[in-house]
Amino acid sequence: MSVLVVGSIALDTVKTPFGEVQDALGGSAVYFAAGASFFAPVNVVGVVGEDFPLASLDFLKARKVDLRGLSAQPGKTFRWSGVYGANLNERETLDTQLNVFAAFKPSIPDAYRRTDYVFLANIDPELQLDVLRQVERPRLIVCDTMNFWIEGKRDALLRTLKAVDVLILNDAETRQLAGEADLLRAARKVLTMGPRTLVVKKGEHGALLISQETFFAAPAYPTESVFDPTGAGDSFAGGFVGRLAQTGDLSEDGLRRAIVYGSVIASFNVERFSVDRLKDLSEAEIQERFRAFKRMTHFEE
Amino acid sequence: MSVLVVGSIALDTVKTPFGEVQDALGGSAVYFAAGASFFAPVNVVGVVGEDFPLASLDFLKARKVDLRGLSAQPGKTFRWSGVYGANLNERETLDTQLNVFAAFKPSIPDAYRRTDYVFLANIDPELQLDVLRQVERPRLIVCDTMNFWIEGKRDALLRTLKAVDVLILNDAETRQLAGEADLLRAARKVLTMGPRTLVVKKGEHGALLISQETFFAAPAYPTESVFDPTGAGDSFAGGFVGRLAQTGDLSEDGLRRAIVYGSVIASFNVERFSVDRLKDLSEAEIQERFRAFKRMTHFEE
Repeated sequence: MSVLVVGSIALDTVKTPFGEVQDALGGSAVYFAAGASFFAPVNVVGVVGEDFPLASLDFLKARKVDLRGLSAQPGKTFRWSGVYGANLNERETLDTQLNVFAAFKPSIPDAYRRTDYVFLANIDPELQLDVLRQVERPRLIVCDTMNFWIEGKRDALLRTLKAVDVLILNDAETRQLAGEADLLRAARKVLTMGPRTLVVKKGEHGALLISQETFFAAPAYPTESVFDPTGAGDSFAGGFVGRLAQTGDLSEDGLRRAIVYGSVIASFNVERFSVDRLKDLSEAEIQERFRAFKRMTHFEE
Repeated sequence: MSVLVVGSIALDTVKTPFGEVQDALGGSAVYFAAGASFFAPVNVVGVVGEDFPLASLDFLKARKVDLRGLSAQPGKTFRWSGVYGANLNERETLDTQLNVFAAFKPSIPDAYRRTDYVFLANIDPELQLDVLRQVERPRLIVCDTMNFWIEGKRDALLRTLKAVDVLILNDAETRQLAGEADLLRAARKVLTMGPRTLVVKKGEHGALLISQETFFAAPAYPTESVFDPTGAGDSFAGGFVGRLAQTGDLSEDGLRRAIVYGSVIASFNVERFSVDRLKDLSEAEIQERFRAFKRMTHFEE
């Protein structure tokens, strides 16, 4: 089964304690597609400007990523610039130029309307809802958002959430959306807003999968080689949704394995700038790290 | 096999968002002994003042906790007072009165000198080393410490660490001891200081077991009923060391299971003030929660 992603395509200028990169390929749709493409065909909807180096997406095309939903508009591509502190947990946005992304109105190509798995990356919740109006009964709708929309477009977000199956948030966003300091209580409250499953990303502390019936805790991969955390969340979502689309297994077991595959992809993604590590990542490396996750969480009863 | 613990015995005045308690039973040796006593006989070395209500320890006696190492001295018992913020992750110490604890010089009774498992709770590293001089080749030495000693008595602490098998720290202390922001790099550095195994406590994010050969990540139990976090770390250590002493299994598998038992005990301990929850905790509840930890971390390969 294939996956539809609607999100940003960006040129990122990023500084970490280990180096600096200018106008590197970025954006939620790109990180997501790069991660998901290891598992399933991906359909991308996004917008770029006239200055965008289209050849930079050739590696995605080679992996069954359909870019017909990419719209090139007059003007410049969305640009983001940020710098990470010494421990990589905090980042400061230096500059955001929305450019052509400011007027982004996702138009889903006819060929994409029956995609079974939909990922609504972090964009305006009104646009997310508009995407859902254009697709035909997907099997699974997964949604991301951020503090900016939780605060600034709460009503629209709550409308979108009613139509969503799985919501992916970080821990701070979960607390903010629920207005509740205790993470588990906050999660239970979010589960009354529409999504039947909540995925809580906790960065170096891993990820949680929470539904009314269950609770699953996956650790993060213990890496000493975090180089650039940009795109960790979107590549995680790519591995997660991509794996679900590959297997079609939406059982509790299937969701758990998909969370681990998401963690695997994110753990590779942060090893280099941009999506560079995902370009040369092999199937064997993915499987080997999946087994490493199993080893590091296993204990006998 | 039995366990020796040397640490503080205190009367704590604690305020959390859920209530307040005055002069409640506390101290590292008490929390540890309460946790370990579910698994193995415990020998306690500590000091109390004339004002200490000895009857408050009767529940420990009933569980094979040997209190002959308890010394009652003229003066008042160690008192600590603190208040927790809304999310229970931060606490402020309002008052510390060392009282008789200021002159604490642990004297290990003859009957305790051959205890196979030793837990050096968080006291002056010089006193920890002095304890080790008084015991006869224990099978396992587990040590706790804190930022105060890492900063103020670093040389003495480094001497103690050379004699220690397992060191238990929280994540901030691990970074501080190693002088290294990356947690995994910091852990590897600590493993060159003496301990062959490091346990990193991460509060609501669980615990890590790290050695040269392995890495194990255990989550924390997802509880909505954290009432008072005081003693979480010491009761965790109690469950961990107690379980090791019970089984004698120091293999990787044995250490992993013991980490989970420590997490189980800590998860109960924080449900009420002081050691109140550990007083009426049953074997069946412990086993049931151990299985819940298994369920919440399990995924199929």
